[in-house]
Amino acid sequence: MGGNTNSPCASCKLLRRRCTKDCIFAPYFPSHDPHKFAIVHKVFGASNVSKMLQELPCDQREDAVSSLVYEAHARMRDPVYGCVGAISYLQNQVSELQMQLAVAQAEMLCIQMEHEYDSLSRETIF
Amino acid sequence: MGGNTNSPCASCKLLRRRCTKDCIFAPYFPSHDPHKFAIVHKVFGASNVSKMLQELPCDQREDAVSSLVYEAHARMRDPVYGCVGAISYLQNQVSELQMQLAVAQAEMLCIQMEHEYDSLSRETIF
Repeated sequence: MGGNTNSPCASCKLLRRRCTKDCIFAPYFPSHDPHKFAIVHKVFGASNVSKMLQELPCDQREDAVSSLVYEAHARMRDPVYGCVGAISYLQNQVSELQMQLAVAQAEMLCIQMEHEYDSLSRETIF
Repeated sequence: MGGNTNSPCASCKLLRRRCTKDCIFAPYFPSHDPHKFAIVHKVFGASNVSKMLQELPCDQREDAVSSLVYEAHARMRDPVYGCVGAISYLQNQVSELQMQLAVAQAEMLCIQMEHEYDSLSRETIF
């Protein structure tokens, strides 16, 4: 049984199959969280997730599962754009901030030049 | 035949099935670009993509396909983090820019205060 418990992992339970001790899903999809596997299965399909995990070294599989769960949630929330909607929003935010920063730096330069000009004028007066 | 051509669409060709005139894939996966469907099929599975498209109104399907292709490419490039790697990178970039902007605004305030202090000092001298 997956995860050394008496119940099959969430994946094997949903797929109605025997959960063996070398089940690829068991370490990442515990029986107490059936939604985690259900959402990944709905978006990517169990077979694809299994293949993706098999192609990765064990120490990277947990991160891969987390990112697949994140992507699947994003696709459920936004069936048209999924994660790409968030990327597009963040890219716009980066562009906006880069512009604001450039404006702030230009303003700062103007203030500094004005300041220096004033100082020079004063030196000329004295 | 999908897309009103004489050849089946890229999806039906890969899945070795008959491409009917109401094929859900045909408008978005033309026969001349087999890679576009292959990558989406590899990551999401044809059946899931078909279901996702069926659940959307026709005018949103093209955008959905584009975002699925983008996500699939990201997952092929980075099998551990996929699109989530890009989101994480952009979130860090936003935080970094927000910090730089706050610093620039604080510096600008200091320069302005210094400037005003100098002006006041001058007024006192004259």
